[in-house]
Amino acid sequence: MEYRFSDIFRYIKPSEIRSLLKYTSDPELISFGGGMPNPESFPIKEMKEILNDVIDNYGKKALQYGTTEGLDPLRDELAKYVEKTEGIRAKREEIILTTGSQQALYAIGKIFTNPGETVITEGPTYVGAISAFNSNKAEMIAIDLDDKGMDVDALEERIRNFMANGTKPKFIYVIPTFQNPAGTTMVLDRRKQLLEISKRYEIPIVEDNPYGQLRYDGDPVPSIKSMDDDGNVIYLGTFSKVMAPGLRLGYVIADRQIVEKINLVKQGLDLASDSLSEYIAYEYLKRGDIYRQIPKTVSLYRKKRDLMLKSIAEYFPEGVKYTKPNGGMFLWVSLDEKIDTTRMLERALKAKVAYVSGAAFYPHGEKHNSMRLNFTYSDDDKIVEGIKRLAYVINEEMEVVE
Amino acid sequence: MEYRFSDIFRYIKPSEIRSLLKYTSDPELISFGGGMPNPESFPIKEMKEILNDVIDNYGKKALQYGTTEGLDPLRDELAKYVEKTEGIRAKREEIILTTGSQQALYAIGKIFTNPGETVITEGPTYVGAISAFNSNKAEMIAIDLDDKGMDVDALEERIRNFMANGTKPKFIYVIPTFQNPAGTTMVLDRRKQLLEISKRYEIPIVEDNPYGQLRYDGDPVPSIKSMDDDGNVIYLGTFSKVMAPGLRLGYVIADRQIVEKINLVKQGLDLASDSLSEYIAYEYLKRGDIYRQIPKTVSLYRKKRDLMLKSIAEYFPEGVKYTKPNGGMFLWVSLDEKIDTTRMLERALKAKVAYVSGAAFYPHGEKHNSMRLNFTYSDDDKIVEGIKRLAYVINEEMEVVE
Repeated sequence: MEYRFSDIFRYIKPSEIRSLLKYTSDPELISFGGGMPNPESFPIKEMKEILNDVIDNYGKKALQYGTTEGLDPLRDELAKYVEKTEGIRAKREEIILTTGSQQALYAIGKIFTNPGETVITEGPTYVGAISAFNSNKAEMIAIDLDDKGMDVDALEERIRNFMANGTKPKFIYVIPTFQNPAGTTMVLDRRKQLLEISKRYEIPIVEDNPYGQLRYDGDPVPSIKSMDDDGNVIYLGTFSKVMAPGLRLGYVIADRQIVEKINLVKQGLDLASDSLSEYIAYEYLKRGDIYRQIPKTVSLYRKKRDLMLKSIAEYFPEGVKYTKPNGGMFLWVSLDEKIDTTRMLERALKAKVAYVSGAAFYPHGEKHNSMRLNFTYSDDDKIVEGIKRLAYVINEEMEVVE
Repeated sequence: MEYRFSDIFRYIKPSEIRSLLKYTSDPELISFGGGMPNPESFPIKEMKEILNDVIDNYGKKALQYGTTEGLDPLRDELAKYVEKTEGIRAKREEIILTTGSQQALYAIGKIFTNPGETVITEGPTYVGAISAFNSNKAEMIAIDLDDKGMDVDALEERIRNFMANGTKPKFIYVIPTFQNPAGTTMVLDRRKQLLEISKRYEIPIVEDNPYGQLRYDGDPVPSIKSMDDDGNVIYLGTFSKVMAPGLRLGYVIADRQIVEKINLVKQGLDLASDSLSEYIAYEYLKRGDIYRQIPKTVSLYRKKRDLMLKSIAEYFPEGVKYTKPNGGMFLWVSLDEKIDTTRMLERALKAKVAYVSGAAFYPHGEKHNSMRLNFTYSDDDKIVEGIKRLAYVINEEMEVVE
């Protein structure tokens, strides 16, 4: 039979990253493409202890439907965790668990945007956010970022233009710390300025902070949410990078009104998050395992970042630019403007190395000469070998375009 | 600050069932409201063994991001399971895991309906489906059901009316076996007729079958999907009622085109389901634990159904009608037409007994004198006591309305 699908498929397309996953079964391929944590960072031993205790102590509850907002004691532990790590003060009622941060992004798109309404993002920005906002048929405007984060002056000018036309973007989406994909961190002054802009124009900020605890050098910069006293900031956190991404658990911290709206939307999306995973996360926080695990992960990833940077310096052709992130999981590489990394990907896959091409991180694919490299997932020897292969591919491609 | 929310909140409202959950902390309240399995039905011992083996054997994979479509070996085991239990033949590529059946309902609404387009449901129908379809701004038309299931003649007439106006509903949503909330089962003839209608008018059927394995008496009726050879039926299953609902795992079996569309939408919704839960489900199927657990659950629930029916016969006033389901989790009680069960609920809560009022199960709240009673969750003594309280409440309400 012939199916009559909705028009949503004019807005969403297969994700390049997800499509790349099918190549991961090729053992020869070295992939810098995914955004996957290294399995060495998973607290397997602690997980086993926790799982046994959860089944023994809360078995029936951990297997039963939970509430849409998530387990109360987990939300209380989260309040302590974000206060300790990010200086954010939140009450239980201001926290809602989500099925990964992806669901939070989707729900936020849904509660704020009608089809065609505008959302501001950084350019480049997280591909999963593009997918979530596109799914809600939002229009995205990307504001360039540099090594100090989003260009907030350009942002304000853009907002003024909107206001002059009698309209306003619905929210401003940023990943201020160890940005995905750029690896850059927004400096404190700009964070303050962004918050001022949010207040002045009454446009909420969505602060996505999956990587904040993965700092390898430099001093922490306060989260925007920690400076927010008027409910301007909607904060997104996740267990994916500090526990395990297979347990699909993220959270939103925001004004109660927003939490209630997300709750209502989540009832239609999946009723509630995975109870067992919520109990695991609760114990992981309560026991303090998280505070012992993060430094191990940081130490593992710092070495990998250093190794990738060193290999790039050694093998990449001159003139290639790349970020040197103080944390997170990604480097952002910018090639000669003549190069289209989407087209180059085919060549790379033949050379058995993968990345995500830069265009995927722009709402309208507007820039073509960049790529995102993940440095956390691959084994050390593969990092070196993969960068060698990529250097070869770039050199080849440059010969073609010149 | 003042938030500018989208117009979605004109379409979705807080669910009465979810709202009732807040009363569950009152130990005096006897709730027939939720759709929760009895925790006695959870395979706790088996879960503990499985969890330990999963961590030992697949720890790193079970904690890592999974693919959007779900674990390949789980999909293969599911193919065997649905063939054995429901006579459905499916290839791996025709199966996609979802974060509970709720996500499947949401995604199906999303891939098929543009705002204002029509979906046909049974009347009454599952409240979570109403919520999922409303979230996609679909228009719902409920076709009455009787003790033989949906009135398929009325359905065909309705479709003809649509066609006469140059339009067509996008799909037909049914819960043919042990319907939620009515407890009725669609007879074989009507299933065949429904499939014929689907073929004739090229309108897909969404067959939701969460309770199919919970049969307490009578002979199994073939699933509609088992009779489908043209991709007319989109089949929804779940682990919630045969393993544990806290592990948010459902699945869709459908034509590859549909599975691919759901995959694309799911990437925006939550990237992938919970990996740990997928590994647990895989082992639960592979070991055959599921085939040992279902008969235990059936035996537990059969007694509870019998007890509730007996108590109703004993205590409810004459003239009250109710279904006598051969399986599933719910009874549907119809009171005097003058009674509005939504209004009566306040009186019931004062008497410390809860139900879900019938209006919640109609897309436009069109009928007011019914209620859904869950018989699986409560302890036996509470079933008797709760029915006594409810009888008292009904008698009181009847005095008021007369």
